Amino acid sequence: MGEAYEPRSGCPINAAVEVFGDRWSLLVLRDIVFGDRRYFRELQAGSEEGIASNILADRLKRLVELGLLTREDTRAGQRARYSLTEPAIQLVPVFAQLGSWGLRHRPTSRALRVRAELLEQGGPALWQEFMDELRRSHLGSNSPARSPSVRERLNAAYLAATNSS
Amino acid sequence: MGEAYEPRSGCPINAAVEVFGDRWSLLVLRDIVFGDRRYFRELQAGSEEGIASNILADRLKRLVELGLLTREDTRAGQRARYSLTEPAIQLVPVFAQLGSWGLRHRPTSRALRVRAELLEQGGPALWQEFMDELRRSHLGSNSPARSPSVRERLNAAYLAATNSS
Repeated sequence: MGEAYEPRSGCPINAAVEVFGDRWSLLVLRDIVFGDRRYFRELQAGSEEGIASNILADRLKRLVELGLLTREDTRAGQRARYSLTEPAIQLVPVFAQLGSWGLRHRPTSRALRVRAELLEQGGPALWQEFMDELRRSHLGSNSPARSPSVRERLNAAYLAATNSS
Repeated sequence: MGEAYEPRSGCPINAAVEVFGDRWSLLVLRDIVFGDRRYFRELQAGSEEGIASNILADRLKRLVELGLLTREDTRAGQRARYSLTEPAIQLVPVFAQLGSWGLRHRPTSRALRVRAELLEQGGPALWQEFMDELRRSHLGSNSPARSPSVRERLNAAYLAATNSS
């Protein structure tokens, strides 16, 4: 991690927020965590906020430099795949609290609310289970899997809300 | 709240993160919440990150427009005082999670770590107590006060760490 990433103060809140810098970095991580998007093209095509390709490229590079993502080097002509690192996986509780706050205090859409609602209802036990799942798929850990997975449950709720709205 | 503040998507995480936009808005709120700084001059002079006065002025204005702060109109020659609104007070759990994450995954300084550590150890019960305290001093609520207050405990820990380092 380069000199440029020394935080402006030793406050842990500042140090955390500096990593996200602007909101796009956090949204890219959100899409990898909740949307299971591992490739540049999926991240761009699926972006609810319409991220521009130059911003996406810049933020992916920055997140790799910061140690939040790893990029699998691939053979020429193959797409590079991104994986979450352990620090990025541990952002799940931060996402859950941000989602809970957004649900209460900001305009949100029904289909996109359901995942935040489920995360809130599930609380820390569900966040842990989801982090273990992410460790299996991104870090190759061997902890036992449960079925349906947290991701499957979140997606089922999202699809149900989309179809009924 | 103006048109300009319609979020780019209905995702609650995005909607939350858009409010902070850049990190300065969140840091200004942090200093009001944890530092009890209510005036422009205190916010600027006390800023660990060295916020510039034009940025501070812009973010205070924006946070008032977004409904996260209120500004007491004062007589000519008097300083304006800022108060947190209920949505801003409910950011305490977000700050706690960001602080916990920063403690673990980013370089931080000892004196500035202690508050995040106490918030983490205290968990949701302490966050609630702190939010009630903020409601008393910022919203004028009449819930019963405890002594020492959470803020007093956080400050005592900070001073102890500062003096011993």
